[in-house]
Amino acid sequence: MPIYIQNSLSRRKEPFEPTKPPQVNMYTCGVTVYDDCHIGHARSLYIFDVIRRYLVYRGFKVNFVRNITDIDDKIINRANELKVSWEDLVAKYIQRYYEDIEVLGISRADFEPRATENIPDMIKYIQALIERGFAYESGGDVYFNVRKFSGYGKLSGQSIDAMESGTRIEPTEHKKDPLDFALWKKSKENEPFWESPWGNGRPGWHIECSVMSQKYLKVDTLDIHAGGRDLIFPHHENEIAQAEALTGKPFAKYWIHHGLLTINSQKMSKSLGNFVTITDFLSKHRYADILKLFFLSAHYSHPIDYSEEKITEVKQALERILIFLDKAQNLAASKKAGQFQDLENLKQEFIKAMDDDFNLPQGLAVIFELVNAGNKKLDDANYAFCARAILLELAGILGLELHREAMHEDVDDLINQRNEARKNKNFKESDRIRKELELKGIVLEDTKDGKTTWRKKL
Amino acid sequence: MPIYIQNSLSRRKEPFEPTKPPQVNMYTCGVTVYDDCHIGHARSLYIFDVIRRYLVYRGFKVNFVRNITDIDDKIINRANELKVSWEDLVAKYIQRYYEDIEVLGISRADFEPRATENIPDMIKYIQALIERGFAYESGGDVYFNVRKFSGYGKLSGQSIDAMESGTRIEPTEHKKDPLDFALWKKSKENEPFWESPWGNGRPGWHIECSVMSQKYLKVDTLDIHAGGRDLIFPHHENEIAQAEALTGKPFAKYWIHHGLLTINSQKMSKSLGNFVTITDFLSKHRYADILKLFFLSAHYSHPIDYSEEKITEVKQALERILIFLDKAQNLAASKKAGQFQDLENLKQEFIKAMDDDFNLPQGLAVIFELVNAGNKKLDDANYAFCARAILLELAGILGLELHREAMHEDVDDLINQRNEARKNKNFKESDRIRKELELKGIVLEDTKDGKTTWRKKL
Repeated sequence: MPIYIQNSLSRRKEPFEPTKPPQVNMYTCGVTVYDDCHIGHARSLYIFDVIRRYLVYRGFKVNFVRNITDIDDKIINRANELKVSWEDLVAKYIQRYYEDIEVLGISRADFEPRATENIPDMIKYIQALIERGFAYESGGDVYFNVRKFSGYGKLSGQSIDAMESGTRIEPTEHKKDPLDFALWKKSKENEPFWESPWGNGRPGWHIECSVMSQKYLKVDTLDIHAGGRDLIFPHHENEIAQAEALTGKPFAKYWIHHGLLTINSQKMSKSLGNFVTITDFLSKHRYADILKLFFLSAHYSHPIDYSEEKITEVKQALERILIFLDKAQNLAASKKAGQFQDLENLKQEFIKAMDDDFNLPQGLAVIFELVNAGNKKLDDANYAFCARAILLELAGILGLELHREAMHEDVDDLINQRNEARKNKNFKESDRIRKELELKGIVLEDTKDGKTTWRKKL
Repeated sequence: MPIYIQNSLSRRKEPFEPTKPPQVNMYTCGVTVYDDCHIGHARSLYIFDVIRRYLVYRGFKVNFVRNITDIDDKIINRANELKVSWEDLVAKYIQRYYEDIEVLGISRADFEPRATENIPDMIKYIQALIERGFAYESGGDVYFNVRKFSGYGKLSGQSIDAMESGTRIEPTEHKKDPLDFALWKKSKENEPFWESPWGNGRPGWHIECSVMSQKYLKVDTLDIHAGGRDLIFPHHENEIAQAEALTGKPFAKYWIHHGLLTINSQKMSKSLGNFVTITDFLSKHRYADILKLFFLSAHYSHPIDYSEEKITEVKQALERILIFLDKAQNLAASKKAGQFQDLENLKQEFIKAMDDDFNLPQGLAVIFELVNAGNKKLDDANYAFCARAILLELAGILGLELHREAMHEDVDDLINQRNEARKNKNFKESDRIRKELELKGIVLEDTKDGKTTWRKKL
């Protein structure tokens, strides 16, 4: 059974078929580092961490990139306000960001590129867009010419003309069209800048995500691009325009957007005084699990409303889980586990081995004792099931994946053809298919009840 | 029961007591990026990944730093050989390194600092060592004066005089003493350099680890410093000298060293033609689990010998595990699991919910159904145990930790005192202790069989 994903691009729930299974290339828009992260950021980070974990659980190999925007107007303005350098501001909030994801227990991405580390690549990308006629230089800025890209609006579902009504060109801008957006911005006096063919300046926000996603995932078409709903327009629309104008290929197969967070039904904002940072939350409620359970209570794509009443409910719910786990653990430890006591004993043996200066060979021996114990009682499905669960728990500590390669449909097809041939007593054909499968490293086993199982040799 | 660790510093197996439990600050010496990683590197990366995972499993919060050495003689020489810039060489092999750890399924560290990103901090550190009289500038180099640090030799267990016999000062060096080591090296013509108070140059190798470990872990004394046995002298000895000369405090409480890897009983080297990179291994054997099982077959602190015969054995062992897991899974799926079938059904419900566009609230509902099912059958320890195992498996996908705060010995002490008071019918005292515990958020529950359990309120 495939995973189904609500794809913001097609507006439909679609079976998930990455380009090269089991590989999944996934990108999510990360934080802009000019202030402490709030619980809205935490939701975004958590939701996509869970989606990634689930894909891994289902046997996919996820290559995950989450960027850090470390140069933009907000950063420059905040640094000026505080009278610090933008570099110091950014260094401080990158550190705070990493502290936040650490206390939340959010996994690191495979790549966490910073915009300012990739400016030469952005300049090359912009140059190529100019060469292809999709962008133009104007007064030291470079703009993307939206009218040149026929697919503009396909993610947000709006026509260019509808979008354009009500927008206008600011006097400071050198655009041809109000919807055109900056790929490169000329630096004003005392602003940070990088050298470019168009003079000193800095990249626009949208270009960094197109460039860094393709660069670090090493593909033109991502499998999943994820972010908050508030980024659909213009950010993600512009990312698509940039990338597809350049490559002529779809930029991402699946677009996943999470809903936004409100506080007591209001937008979170500093001026309203209802701003809850991750640190605020944790210094009050201590356990990241509370925040996570709260996020789990809504569908990721829906809005979620935060309130202290809701958190109180969540705490009670978490307490219920913990009390049960304690009780079940105590039962197992109290030697009342009957015929399964040996499984619990093996688990304790594993812990004892690891507690003794991480005795890995002895820990591994316990894994094989679990295999032996389970194999001896395959007539007791409960027991085997339980042995399997414990084995997987312990193997997880050892970082073992214990996955065979993902199923390939053609194997099932060949097995069906072989069964058909055997039914028709065409044994020459059935032998031929068996040999074809053997060449692919597939070993067939015909079971007593007439079915055929297969495994791929290591 | 504590974890015991063989501490290379004390040469004894010691109970593991980090400075501020449950926090654990851990540093490991990472790779020098001038060539592809070989399976010896893989062992180091894997072993410390497992140790970190196990500490997390036991309820510790591990802050893990693994550095990348991106400037040193080997890098400069290799770049010259290949006629490429050192920056390009380093960029290429950092990327290859990340590809390697990704295919191996080694977790990212919390911080993976690069030496060249931290040079201003190294310069400050060296300046402070000069000010304190432990280092001296000489001909554009800066050296650590080993004789000034009384603890020199304590990790490798050698006296300075014994170490010094046989060493001599090279004509190119400006040392006062043959054992003195470079903190800063003057750059030769056409070498990369950074500006410093001592002229253009670059940091020595040893200084980067002292500086980056303390900087990113934000402590003077690390809980765990880990690395290969070959690094004990001089690298780790020098790290201790630098750090302790500066802070006057112990640099690391526990030193963990892994044994080295040989191939067919020989040292791995390019000239012997027995060099096996991670890519070589995986293109031949495909599964990272095979390499991991091989590493698990020896104690981490012992040497391990690689051979194709050994890998063949390991493959057979892995096949045994996988076949059992398949059988147990098939049993559970075949509706033969008897009274536990409802637990397997709940697990399938969870997967169904998540497969349906990651329906988190429905997935969470399954977690609570497991709690309910388990609670209803607490008289059947096997069942409760199994429900707990499945709950933990699913909660892991959701990134829930489900740990209460680590046990504090003082709570157990207070409970014992209270029980003592109750035995002596000193109810005033026992009530006082209950109230003291309540103030700490500890709820006591006296069970029917006269024992007292406690939990910390969320």
